[in-house]
Formats: sequence, C-alpha cells, structure tokens
Amino acid sequence: MTWEDDRNKPDDITEIVDRLMPEEIFMKYIFKNAMVLTMNNQEISESCDVLVEDDVISAIGSLNDEQKNNARVIDASGKLLMPGLINGHCHVPMTLLRNYADDMSLQTWLFDHIFPVEEKLQGEDIYYGSLLGIMEMIASGTTCFIDMYDHMNDLARAVEESGIRAQLSRGMINTGEGPDFSDDTRLNETIDFYKRWNGAANGRITGAFAPHAIYTCSPAYIRAIVETAQKYGAPIHVHLDETLVEHEDCLKKYGKTPAKHLYDLGVFEQKTVAAHCVWITEDDARILADNKVTMTHNPSSNLKLASGIAPVPNALNIGVNVALGTDGASSNNNLNMFEEINLAALIHKGANQDPLLITAMESLKMATVNGAIAIGMDNLGVIKEGAKADIIMIDMDKPHLMPVHNVVSALAYSVQASDVCLTMVDGEILYENGEFKTIDKEKVSHGIKKCYERLF
Amino acid sequence: MTWEDDRNKPDDITEIVDRLMPEEIFMKYIFKNAMVLTMNNQEISESCDVLVEDDVISAIGSLNDEQKNNARVIDASGKLLMPGLINGHCHVPMTLLRNYADDMSLQTWLFDHIFPVEEKLQGEDIYYGSLLGIMEMIASGTTCFIDMYDHMNDLARAVEESGIRAQLSRGMINTGEGPDFSDDTRLNETIDFYKRWNGAANGRITGAFAPHAIYTCSPAYIRAIVETAQKYGAPIHVHLDETLVEHEDCLKKYGKTPAKHLYDLGVFEQKTVAAHCVWITEDDARILADNKVTMTHNPSSNLKLASGIAPVPNALNIGVNVALGTDGASSNNNLNMFEEINLAALIHKGANQDPLLITAMESLKMATVNGAIAIGMDNLGVIKEGAKADIIMIDMDKPHLMPVHNVVSALAYSVQASDVCLTMVDGEILYENGEFKTIDKEKVSHGIKKCYERLF
Repeated sequence: MTWEDDRNKPDDITEIVDRLMPEEIFMKYIFKNAMVLTMNNQEISESCDVLVEDDVISAIGSLNDEQKNNARVIDASGKLLMPGLINGHCHVPMTLLRNYADDMSLQTWLFDHIFPVEEKLQGEDIYYGSLLGIMEMIASGTTCFIDMYDHMNDLARAVEESGIRAQLSRGMINTGEGPDFSDDTRLNETIDFYKRWNGAANGRITGAFAPHAIYTCSPAYIRAIVETAQKYGAPIHVHLDETLVEHEDCLKKYGKTPAKHLYDLGVFEQKTVAAHCVWITEDDARILADNKVTMTHNPSSNLKLASGIAPVPNALNIGVNVALGTDGASSNNNLNMFEEINLAALIHKGANQDPLLITAMESLKMATVNGAIAIGMDNLGVIKEGAKADIIMIDMDKPHLMPVHNVVSALAYSVQASDVCLTMVDGEILYENGEFKTIDKEKVSHGIKKCYERLF
Repeated sequence: MTWEDDRNKPDDITEIVDRLMPEEIFMKYIFKNAMVLTMNNQEISESCDVLVEDDVISAIGSLNDEQKNNARVIDASGKLLMPGLINGHCHVPMTLLRNYADDMSLQTWLFDHIFPVEEKLQGEDIYYGSLLGIMEMIASGTTCFIDMYDHMNDLARAVEESGIRAQLSRGMINTGEGPDFSDDTRLNETIDFYKRWNGAANGRITGAFAPHAIYTCSPAYIRAIVETAQKYGAPIHVHLDETLVEHEDCLKKYGKTPAKHLYDLGVFEQKTVAAHCVWITEDDARILADNKVTMTHNPSSNLKLASGIAPVPNALNIGVNVALGTDGASSNNNLNMFEEINLAALIHKGANQDPLLITAMESLKMATVNGAIAIGMDNLGVIKEGAKADIIMIDMDKPHLMPVHNVVSALAYSVQASDVCLTMVDGEILYENGEFKTIDKEKVSHGIKKCYERLF
C-alpha cells in the first residue's frame, strides 16, 4: 500500500482513517485458526476463526472478506480459546493480606490477625490491594468476579480502570438495634454505591446488596436489607453455612438451618449468590434449587480454614447452580481459578471414594456458565455469536500439556495459570504474553509497598 | 584482563585455561544476593551468596575474592533459592498417557485403557515419554524422582542425558509359580539393570528393586525379590495399601494388613519406599516408623482415582518419614510437585476440620528433606555447605506472590510451577528462564508426536 493508492480514493475518508488507526485502539479482532472450547456445547472446534467487534463476539467459523476488514488478526494456532473464568466469590482487596496469617485456627486468624489489620485499612489500601488482585486474576484467565468488601468506591475505581468485569457489594454487618435502619451507615453506603456504580463502565460493573452472614446480621437487619434490595431490584451476595459452628449455632438460636433462616427472611426472593454452603442439608439444597440461588464453592479456602468439604455433587444432583470461587487471598492464598477447577474435580472424588464425581467438564462449567448464571448474564461464560467478548487464550505448546489427548481434561488437571497468554474483557485486551495493557505494574508494586509499610 | 596479563604468567596454564573456559562448561557458580530457604534450619537468609563448585554447594554467606574467582555470577536479587524438590513416587514414561483416560472407575481406567496401551509400549515410547516428563519436572522445580516402570534402560538413558537425578526400578509382577524364580525375566532384568546403572552418571542414577504390589506379587515372589535385593544391598520401592479393596482383600487372604504382610515377608529389612499408604492402620504406621520405611503421599492421584485421603498427620505424629509424590501423569495429570505441596497442606486440614494440620513448612519438608531420607542421601534436600548442588531459584516478583509476608506460606499456598526460573542438578544448570539446557524440546515434541500416532 502506497500513498498513491490512497490518492486514488480521495473521497473515501473513513477507509483511510480506519487504515491508519493505531493498533492500540482497534475495536475489531480476529482470533485466527484457534482451537475453541465454546462451553455453549461441549465440543471442541478445531482451526476456527473468532471475530470480535466492540464488546461482542460477532462471528465464529470461516469469516468473509468484509468481516476480516480492518481487524487486528491474532494468530491463535496451537492455542485454545475459551470463555473467561468467572470467580464466584472473592474479597479482592484482601490480596494485600496474602500469606499474612496461615496455619492457625479460624478464631486466631480472624480476631488476632485479620480484623486488627482490616480496621487500619484506608481507601488507598483497597485500591492497590484490588489492583494487585485484579492483575493476578487477569493473568490467570479470570475475566469477571463477584466481590464483597468495604471502601467500595476505591474497589470500583480499580475495576473501572483495569477493564475487568465485576459484581460488587459492600459487606454489611449489624451494629444498630433496629427495627429502623434508615440511618444505618453501611446500608446507606450500599444504596449510594449501588446508585453510582450499578451498570457503570459499559455495564462491566454491577452492584449487589450483601448482608455479610447470619451470624453478623440480626434478622431485623437482614429484613431491612432485603426490603431495600427489593426497592432497587438488586441481587444479594451472602456468606452461607461456611462452618459447622455457624450451622449448629443457627439450629440452637433459630431452630432451623442457616439456609432455611435466610429463606424465611425473604432473602431468596432476590437473585442470590450464597458463598460456601459447606454444611447445607439435602432440604437446604432443595430450597437453593427451587429459588434459583447460586451456591459458590470455594474449595481452597474451605480446606485451608478447615471448614470442611461442601456437598457439591449432591447439590448439583438436586439442581443447584454451583459456581466456583477463590474467596480472598488471605485464606487461599491466591486468586487462581484454574486451581479451584482442579480442586473441585479432585476433592469430591477422593472424599467420597467415587472417581465419577465432578468430571473435568462439570468443573469447567462451574467456573464459566454457572458463574454467568450467578451474575445473571446469559451472554457470558460461553463463546457464541452475540456473547460478550470475555475470552481467554491458552498456549497448549507446553511440556506439561503434552500430548493433547483431551483438552477438557488438560484444562482441569494439567494446565497452569501461566499458560494463559491473552485475556480479553468486553472486547478489550487486558493482558497479552505476560504484559498488562491497562495496569501499570510498577505503580501497583510501588503502591503495595507503601501500604504494606504503613500497615505492618 | 588482556593477553598481556596472561603473558605475565606463562607457566600457569591451568589458570589461563580456567579463565578462557566458555560459559557453557562453567563448573563454578555464584548465586548472588539471594533469599535462601535452606530447609536445613527453618529460617530464611536474606541477601545471601551461595557458591557452587562442581556438584557441591561449597560456601554460603559472604564470599571472599578467591571464592569469587572464575565463577559465573547469577544475579539472584528478588529471587528465592531453595533445595530442588524430590518426587517420591512416579512412573515418568506414563507422561505419554497424560489426559488419555479420566473421570472413570479404577477398573475401567486400568483394564480398558491403561493396560491395553501399556502392552504396546516400546523403548522409544519410554524414552520420549520420560524426556517429556523430565522436562515438566525440571521446569517445575523437581531435581530428583523415585520411579518404577518398564523398559528401564530407555528410562535411564533419558535420565542420564537430561541431567536429572533419579532412583529407578523395574516394576515386577508375578507370572511364574515359584518357588524358584532364578529364571524370572523381570527379576533378571532388575538385576541386570541394577548392575549396569546403580551409581551411574556421577551417582545421579541409583537402582532399586520393585515388587509392584501385594496384589500382583505372590508371597514367594516377594521373598525371592527381597533375598536378591539383600544380596545386592538394594533398596525396595513398592505400592502399599493404595485402595480399600487392596486392604480388605489382604485381610481376607492373609489375615493381616498389607503393611504387616510386607513386614512379615522381610521387605522392610531393606531400605523401603512405600507409595500411597492410604489405608494403613495406626499399628501399620508404627511398623513403618520402627523400620524406617518412607511412606510417599500422592494426594492428586489418590483424590483423582478416588482411593481416599492418606492418614498423613497421624503417620507423621507416629514418626513415619512421609515424602511427597505425583504418581504417573496418567492419574494426576501432571508432575508438578508444587501442586502436591499445596494439596498436602490443604486437604488434611479440610478433611479433618483442623486448620493446624500439615503446616506449610511440614509440607515443604515432605517434598525436600523427607524425600532425601527416602532416597537415602543426607546431602540432598537442603542447602548447606557440602550438600549436592540440587538447587532451584524462584522469581518472587509476580503479582500472585505479592506482598511477600511469609515466604514459606507463599511456597505452599501461592507459588506457581512457572515461577521456577532456574533448576540446577549436581551443579549443572538444566533449565534457565524458560530454556532447557540439556534437552532438545523440538526433538522431544517430534518424538512424542511419532509415538502418539503409532499408539492411538
């Protein structure tokens, strides 16, 4: 192409501008010659082209010349394309507390270590802690996460700037007596946050209401939260039945299980994500299934804090939508969803002595399509025409992935987070070949050091 | 340094030769300014220099000028040095069968999938399958492994060429009736292999005798193996009490547990590594402890094949030496020891609802010092003066490792295999910054493809 060619079309300004558009602002991408695990059906498509226009996957298969026009072509030969992973339960700012307190009882961990530091946290800590966690997530293939924490404007700012997708909620813990909670600080912060951020950043950020747990919120407080959530049409994010102590205390105090308690308080009338559900009964699982409540399974955290092993195979059988999550990095101690996929496919087999439980594909579904159901987006968690362009690319040319007998098994049992070579959210490349495109690694590193020095 | 300087010392040929020695054959390395987890004590040394001469760690701390002379200096700032990991139970040629048969019962897996392919395996498959597995191991920080398989000369060739350290044994399964096994093919192959390879490659390769398991070897056969092993002073490698079926069948058939059965047959008079031990009783654990038998814990494989969860915390309490292993890649489906370290530190907490079980340091010990005890080398599994230079270096400048509150926790709960940036065995660098120094990746990739096409 020479300037002479351009001169031949002096009136076609649009085409010239398109042709000169710098790569950085491409809004059209073709992943060329990829192996594709759509998760829409369970098949693998070989040598497939995927077209992304703006924030949407607009075509899959062989593309025509018009479709190919003006797109940045990404060579995906020998690579696997799949939907980005959805982390169904996280406290991303706690990444700042990674490897800070381990191998101790829940009481010692929480009251002697986590709570005292959390009291000192400021907006800056939340912002940098979140950016650090988001870096880890996008480098390991996570494109969306469901989070509950504090200082939510700072967390939302990190999400907005980084380009990742998230459902965010301010965790609410009971302080006042009630029954009137109209002056409750946390509830009012939640309302303000929801109004400001729900639907922000091209819809990448959505809000939820988060009563922390039944042991930190009184029934009256939970009712007040539910009624406000109903007023705004907001979903709910809550911890549920994480430990045997919570389960037994609830039976003693309310004469029913934690799940039944939340059901009776009307929580499940709103779209709900319930994290953990380690001790739910069969009846509880039916309540969750009937009310379309998502149960988020957090295997690393439940093992590490010795909460137990959630009855995931039974819950799936009953029809509960089970998503996967990492929980916070202070009880994991990472935000690597491929590790959770691996654990979910391993531990239930071992604990129940049944090698047929939780297949590789079931575990991958929990981390993709079931996560999309959790967040209420049917155009997420799959690669199909019209779906959001939340896509990850995996380099299969690694000794630990050879030979490629079965891609699905490889993803559940062999892959390493570092095999992710590209992460795209909402049609924007956030991470490619080890480089962060929207986050300044040095700035985050420096910010984390400053926060760390003040806090510890 | 100029030629003039050299001319001043015309007689000192040795020094000139040393000085002109190309980097590729350096026999002296300094890891400069490293963070060092020695595993000798449990402390972390900061800003430490480690000198390697030939195959030995010859100094740690501040080095003098003479020590620094003629060494290749490796900048280890921001890096962690630790002993290479020891994989206490593997079938490395089975890497060729990775992701070939998953999510099925042990019977279907073994009889319908694994055994039929194994029958077709030739020396070339073993050689390339082993090289592939060794590539994965050295890229993920494993410097030594204990293996049992078939076509052992081909496996040993891969070990010799690659530079990794291994204890190798030909798995023996009963076919003849006995009581005379002097013509037994497998036993004779074992003897030949042991004579040829034990102590080979500067001692990197050692041999062992491997009665496969109590359910594949008759008591008379096991006795014949033990007597031969005693004659050669060889150690034993055996599968023990992997499944509940094995345990209960043994009780029925011999009126005692599998461990007691092996003890009564004299197996434990030889230095023994017993893989799995999922169903051992408290009395069995005492037998193992009293006889200094190493129990190798293979958490991924035991979970995936639904064998169960080995009683590791109890065994450690009783004083059993517990090492860690991956088992073969066909039941894991990788050879990543950091994953096993992570699992060992997680699953016992969760399964026993006790967050104090198997600390990060205990799990790291299983993968290093306890592995060294398994293989009978007290100069392995630690970084100390006089120890073998089997060292790995880990890049701590990764988002998923920040902030570095606690290095030991980071290694057990946060690290990824890909954080390993250098692997040295016997003073030779086998892997550095993603590059294999002794293995031709393309050749292996090509060889694997050829084998794969013939077999499947």
